[in-house]
Amino acid sequence: MEIFVYRKNAERVEEGFTANDLPSLLADESNVIWVDIVNKNEENSKEVKEILLNDFKFHPLTVEDCFETRNQPKIEAFPEYLYLIVHGIKPEETHPSNFVTKELDCFLGKNFVVTFRVEGFQSIKLVKQQIRNNTFSCQRGAAYLLHQILDQLVDLYMPVVDDFYEVINSLEDRVFLMKNSGNQVLEEIMDLRRSVSRLKRISSRQLDVLYRISHGEFPQIPASILPFFRDVHDHLQRISDLSENYRDLVNSLFDIHFSVTTNKTNDIIKFLTIFSAIWLPLSFIAGIYGMNFENMPELKTQNGYYFTLCLMALIAISLLIYFWRKGWILQGNEDYNEKESETK
Amino acid sequence: MEIFVYRKNAERVEEGFTANDLPSLLADESNVIWVDIVNKNEENSKEVKEILLNDFKFHPLTVEDCFETRNQPKIEAFPEYLYLIVHGIKPEETHPSNFVTKELDCFLGKNFVVTFRVEGFQSIKLVKQQIRNNTFSCQRGAAYLLHQILDQLVDLYMPVVDDFYEVINSLEDRVFLMKNSGNQVLEEIMDLRRSVSRLKRISSRQLDVLYRISHGEFPQIPASILPFFRDVHDHLQRISDLSENYRDLVNSLFDIHFSVTTNKTNDIIKFLTIFSAIWLPLSFIAGIYGMNFENMPELKTQNGYYFTLCLMALIAISLLIYFWRKGWILQGNEDYNEKESETK
Amino acid sequence: MEIFVYRKNAERVEEGFTANDLPSLLADESNVIWVDIVNKNEENSKEVKEILLNDFKFHPLTVEDCFETRNQPKIEAFPEYLYLIVHGIKPEETHPSNFVTKELDCFLGKNFVVTFRVEGFQSIKLVKQQIRNNTFSCQRGAAYLLHQILDQLVDLYMPVVDDFYEVINSLEDRVFLMKNSGNQVLEEIMDLRRSVSRLKRISSRQLDVLYRISHGEFPQIPASILPFFRDVHDHLQRISDLSENYRDLVNSLFDIHFSVTTNKTNDIIKFLTIFSAIWLPLSFIAGIYGMNFENMPELKTQNGYYFTLCLMALIAISLLIYFWRKGWILQGNEDYNEKESETK
Amino acid sequence: MEIFVYRKNAERVEEGFTANDLPSLLADESNVIWVDIVNKNEENSKEVKEILLNDFKFHPLTVEDCFETRNQPKIEAFPEYLYLIVHGIKPEETHPSNFVTKELDCFLGKNFVVTFRVEGFQSIKLVKQQIRNNTFSCQRGAAYLLHQILDQLVDLYMPVVDDFYEVINSLEDRVFLMKNSGNQVLEEIMDLRRSVSRLKRISSRQLDVLYRISHGEFPQIPASILPFFRDVHDHLQRISDLSENYRDLVNSLFDIHFSVTTNKTNDIIKFLTIFSAIWLPLSFIAGIYGMNFENMPELKTQNGYYFTLCLMALIAISLLIYFWRKGWILQGNEDYNEKESETK
Amino acid sequence: MEIFVYRKNAERVEEGFTANDLPSLLADESNVIWVDIVNKNEENSKEVKEILLNDFKFHPLTVEDCFETRNQPKIEAFPEYLYLIVHGIKPEETHPSNFVTKELDCFLGKNFVVTFRVEGFQSIKLVKQQIRNNTFSCQRGAAYLLHQILDQLVDLYMPVVDDFYEVINSLEDRVFLMKNSGNQVLEEIMDLRRSVSRLKRISSRQLDVLYRISHGEFPQIPASILPFFRDVHDHLQRISDLSENYRDLVNSLFDIHFSVTTNKTNDIIKFLTIFSAIWLPLSFIAGIYGMNFENMPELKTQNGYYFTLCLMALIAISLLIYFWRKGWILQGNEDYNEKESETK
Repeated sequence: MEIFVYRKNAERVEEGFTANDLPSLLADESNVIWVDIVNKNEENSKEVKEILLNDFKFHPLTVEDCFETRNQPKIEAFPEYLYLIVHGIKPEETHPSNFVTKELDCFLGKNFVVTFRVEGFQSIKLVKQQIRNNTFSCQRGAAYLLHQILDQLVDLYMPVVDDFYEVINSLEDRVFLMKNSGNQVLEEIMDLRRSVSRLKRISSRQLDVLYRISHGEFPQIPASILPFFRDVHDHLQRISDLSENYRDLVNSLFDIHFSVTTNKTNDIIKFLTIFSAIWLPLSFIAGIYGMNFENMPELKTQNGYYFTLCLMALIAISLLIYFWRKGWILQGNEDYNEKESETK
Repeated sequence: MEIFVYRKNAERVEEGFTANDLPSLLADESNVIWVDIVNKNEENSKEVKEILLNDFKFHPLTVEDCFETRNQPKIEAFPEYLYLIVHGIKPEETHPSNFVTKELDCFLGKNFVVTFRVEGFQSIKLVKQQIRNNTFSCQRGAAYLLHQILDQLVDLYMPVVDDFYEVINSLEDRVFLMKNSGNQVLEEIMDLRRSVSRLKRISSRQLDVLYRISHGEFPQIPASILPFFRDVHDHLQRISDLSENYRDLVNSLFDIHFSVTTNKTNDIIKFLTIFSAIWLPLSFIAGIYGMNFENMPELKTQNGYYFTLCLMALIAISLLIYFWRKGWILQGNEDYNEKESETK
Repeated sequence: MEIFVYRKNAERVEEGFTANDLPSLLADESNVIWVDIVNKNEENSKEVKEILLNDFKFHPLTVEDCFETRNQPKIEAFPEYLYLIVHGIKPEETHPSNFVTKELDCFLGKNFVVTFRVEGFQSIKLVKQQIRNNTFSCQRGAAYLLHQILDQLVDLYMPVVDDFYEVINSLEDRVFLMKNSGNQVLEEIMDLRRSVSRLKRISSRQLDVLYRISHGEFPQIPASILPFFRDVHDHLQRISDLSENYRDLVNSLFDIHFSVTTNKTNDIIKFLTIFSAIWLPLSFIAGIYGMNFENMPELKTQNGYYFTLCLMALIAISLLIYFWRKGWILQGNEDYNEKESETK
Repeated sequence: MEIFVYRKNAERVEEGFTANDLPSLLADESNVIWVDIVNKNEENSKEVKEILLNDFKFHPLTVEDCFETRNQPKIEAFPEYLYLIVHGIKPEETHPSNFVTKELDCFLGKNFVVTFRVEGFQSIKLVKQQIRNNTFSCQRGAAYLLHQILDQLVDLYMPVVDDFYEVINSLEDRVFLMKNSGNQVLEEIMDLRRSVSRLKRISSRQLDVLYRISHGEFPQIPASILPFFRDVHDHLQRISDLSENYRDLVNSLFDIHFSVTTNKTNDIIKFLTIFSAIWLPLSFIAGIYGMNFENMPELKTQNGYYFTLCLMALIAISLLIYFWRKGWILQGNEDYNEKESETK
Repeated sequence: MEIFVYRKNAERVEEGFTANDLPSLLADESNVIWVDIVNKNEENSKEVKEILLNDFKFHPLTVEDCFETRNQPKIEAFPEYLYLIVHGIKPEETHPSNFVTKELDCFLGKNFVVTFRVEGFQSIKLVKQQIRNNTFSCQRGAAYLLHQILDQLVDLYMPVVDDFYEVINSLEDRVFLMKNSGNQVLEEIMDLRRSVSRLKRISSRQLDVLYRISHGEFPQIPASILPFFRDVHDHLQRISDLSENYRDLVNSLFDIHFSVTTNKTNDIIKFLTIFSAIWLPLSFIAGIYGMNFENMPELKTQNGYYFTLCLMALIAISLLIYFWRKGWILQGNEDYNEKESETK
């Protein structure tokens, strides 16, 4: 638990307080207090719970919600404070097309912000650096401080969203090439689909929270701070729109994959048909002259054999021409490969 | 019919009353009364109906609704009481991917809760244990008692929802393997689809009921109790969102199944094509030298036979190389199986 | 035209009036009057029109609407009366999976209900029996009488809806078996899809009408009667939800049909491939020893023939083993049929 | 430009005025004036523009909108007048499954209606006949006159909508028969899809306009006239609903077409498989006895040849029985054709 | 940075001011000032930022938004000014089926318009010419000037939208012909799908902005100017509707492509089947008479050979007739090509 206190008169940010200092700090309304609680191994859960219940006088249900870890983004107003749950994201290390979410619980009171979390947040680290360097953010009060945290958190969505774009594009290329078996590509598409719809879900719920904040629904946030929350809302709107867009793209991938497979089947069947169509009549002719009838005059002619071979060649060539004119030969995936090599 | 009465002055929960005690119990407004009616074999329907109509003075229509069993979750406000229908669920024993719902009718008055049901409810059993051990729940009044019942009921949704996730995942694996006939897997997907959409429907209707309760629409529920109902609402929201999510996953399963089938057909046709493409020309050559022309000089050469066999081998090998370069050989579902064995 | 009059003082329902009695009956506000007009062959259209316009003083447009037969459910409020169009349904005799709708025009005034229709209604017949036996419904006034008619009308939706469930289930079984040609099943699915979406449309429009009535939008309906209309609304809600559900099921049927066909094609192609893969190499070997080379030492050996036959058998068996290990043999639709016979 | 003036005192409709009479006619508020402007070849555009701007004092933007021809239905209120754009439709002569729309601009003032159009309108012709025969429509004022025009215009949608139904049904029959190549049918389905969605779009936008008129949003239309506009709204609602319905049907057509094609492919492959399965083993047997081994005792037996022929016949018959029991023979599209001939 | 000032008393537009003149120009409320800032290489970003912050006193967040380039259309109201982001589009030079968007930031104050952009805008060039020729636009004040800019910007959407229609139509023709490999067409369809959905997104967001402006939400825009913004809104509405429409068309293209591929596969398989069905039995007969049985009386007859050839011809012809009656011959894509050549 780290406590940051901005003293208005002193115009500086102090650190190094303990839980015991909280009651007196909170009593002084001119302070801006940020209490950042990390409950990693749930070791000091009991202690933390008491601080939240007794020092801050939060509703028991919200404190319970804090310690649950499967919550969705939401905001709830209480007479003395606002309680909101937001989610940070970061790309999963092993799968670039995937991401992990982590929950951040925030409380905003008249002169304090409490952040509660189980995992590390890059965004919170950044805000801490900021306020250590510059008291500017704290001067505007607790609501502005909360805005800073949310702003950093939302900004860290962007790299994940940009990664998705890369992954979708590279997957689309692979779908068109279809070098590997379709099933593997299929699995990756499905994984991507899940990730994108998760992103959509999380960002849209969070958008809802920010919409309510930025439209002045809560008196805890002064009107002069609203434009800043509106700004965060707009950034999140952009992310939500992009994820909506990506969902369409991934669904398209599925359709493409299916069509490419069908095209490929078509090409294979075409190949089989041409092959059969050429060899079957030739074999038939060979079969004719393999018959053992006694009276087959052609068999006795001098050039019957050579003539028959020529006939066979003629039939094969005319069939090839027929298929070429029908457009079944020299199509297939050749021209696609050409096009592809051009673009390289 | 079991009757629980919490006497405010005595601060304890009493049991063992009969229907005849009800009028006097209800008259004392300081009591908190819970009447739990189980109408299993409809044996004492008439008696129960009279109690509801005369002692509690419920509207005849709501009493009729109680005895119907095909209702959907709903809430109705009357001047003297609230009437709500909610549904509990439990996994079906024979099919883990399925679940059964059972209707629970609740009435909330100033100082009483009436629960009416045809089947056993795990959640009601738990609440009974609770109030026997601890009068805490009753102290807060009838509305809080109702909250306890709904809370337990909604909590029992979670295991069913978690089961779904398992079933969907295992089914997805089987779809990708496709060891069995497609039709059997298909049937299971369809069953799952139905179950998930049932879950979605039921939870979203119930969500509606809880939304209306938790947003203070009904004066029967004091403001101090609202956050507790909001908590139940949030849990149910989570379940509803998950079932929405599962519906997407199951629909994906359908698409995957279809694509896997198509990929498989593709592989089979490829196999057929390669096989035909190799044997047809070889058979043709054998056919050529099976012709009975008198003048076929090759037939008389010493090594004609061996030469022909070599030619055939050459043709077969070049065709294999051709198909290998075209990417038709050593693809198929082999690499998928490899990948799969890696993950094990 | 049948006229029923409930005389408040006499507490009984009288019948047998003619159109000429209407003005005096309507003038007595203590009467509850139900005028049921059947305009089957449009023979007395002119006469009826005059009654509606002059005796009841309905707006010319609503009277015109009455005589049209292609209206959709709607409700319109006029200062002196409510005008509503509802639809009854019954299963079509020839096709159980289909239903017919028939229009019922209702007018509700201070002390009268007018029902106008072209066809017979089972529900109206039932209400007539009711009020002949029991004046209870009439005592509560015209609005309650209207509720009785709507209630009966909506109750008669239920058997049709239940029939749909049967039809969908039996069709699903047939889709999985696919004994008949796909096209016939396909046609039935399409018919069902149309019927279900018609049901959805009609019930949801009607739901709209009942929602508006039951939420107290119209002052013609006293507050004490509203719960009864809410009850009808809930029943209709259930029907609307079920038809929504059925629409999903029928759409699933379509998907299943398509997948089953694809699976079947897959099986057939597999069969073809196995067959070709076995016979083609065997024929090739026969072709080899059918060549007429002079120097083919195998031909002269004592057991060459038997040896060749053994070789052929060996090849056939190894190919069968290969396909069996690849999982192409003993799959297909056999195991599905087995499963099916189990369930019988 | 035709001008109709209904003189209240004279109770008759006069014609034959010129643009110069307009200022004096408009000045007399007891007149009901209808100015119908046809701007076919844009010859007198300038003159018309001046009349609209100076005599009627319309906003320059609305006058500009008049002369544009690619507008969508809309309604705009100005202090002195209402401006609305509606669309008439008629079936295209060459393609019955298609229709053309034409724009009609209407202005409604206190005592005048102005209609402006580039093309001929059947509906306007009908209203002109009406008011020549009968001054009834004019007596109710300008708003009622506008209603008459809109009513006729919407009524002329109905034949087009009914035509669609015919076209969809006949196309469905052709899809099931699939006598022609699929591509031609496909093109017609696509054309139909476009037409239907155009109809949906136009009718729903128009519905919007009429909804706003008929719900009393504009004070220019007296309350007593509102039910008449509501009537037009209901008719249009019906058309909009039907076109929604048709869109579903056309989308179904697409699905059916696809399934019928798949069924057909299935049948063809089945045929190919049966054919190959029968001839391949027979050819193999013939190949066996075509081998040139010296020691093949069967070749020397008296009835070896006949015995072999019998064996072949036996194999063929058992295969046919096998396929027949598997249900691959005597299915296909035969039974569908039978069914079809029955229905004729 | 270009500054245009319309002096009310002088009734002319002056140019050639520098940033230093701004404070005095803004102070005179009778001026109408347009400051057009092009920030191409971000060279004078700092200077521009100061002008916006100090001279115009814009909120720091809006100034920051200006310098970001990935914003979506939006509008924000501040007490002293309106801030809006709109997007212009132009066709991409290399791909006609694609387009580029560029951001335009506009500020509207009491007597000024500020436009800020990174790229060149055809629309702004046009408005500059207009106001140089004609002071009319400026006389109506800053809001009208803003309307002029937006109007031109939206008008330049139209050619892009019209291009789309061409591209979609030509692509549809190519899909039906399917001369090239399906994959290339597929890629173009996907590209088009993306472009169209981008267009839809951008236009609908912009529509939102214009809706809010044109419905009088912002007091900065006088009521007399609102109809002009409504006009721009209607134009944009049209574009948004068209892009919605195009999206449907492009999705149809996808479906068509898939169906055409399936039809083609069907034709190829049909071809293969007919071919196999004819040659397999003929080869079998040749195989029969290629057997080496000693006792095969037919072989010794005089005309056995010719008779056999006739038999083969007979079989081939009857099979052809069978297929022709089954409708498998002379169908395929021939009749489509015919139809196509007719339309040329």
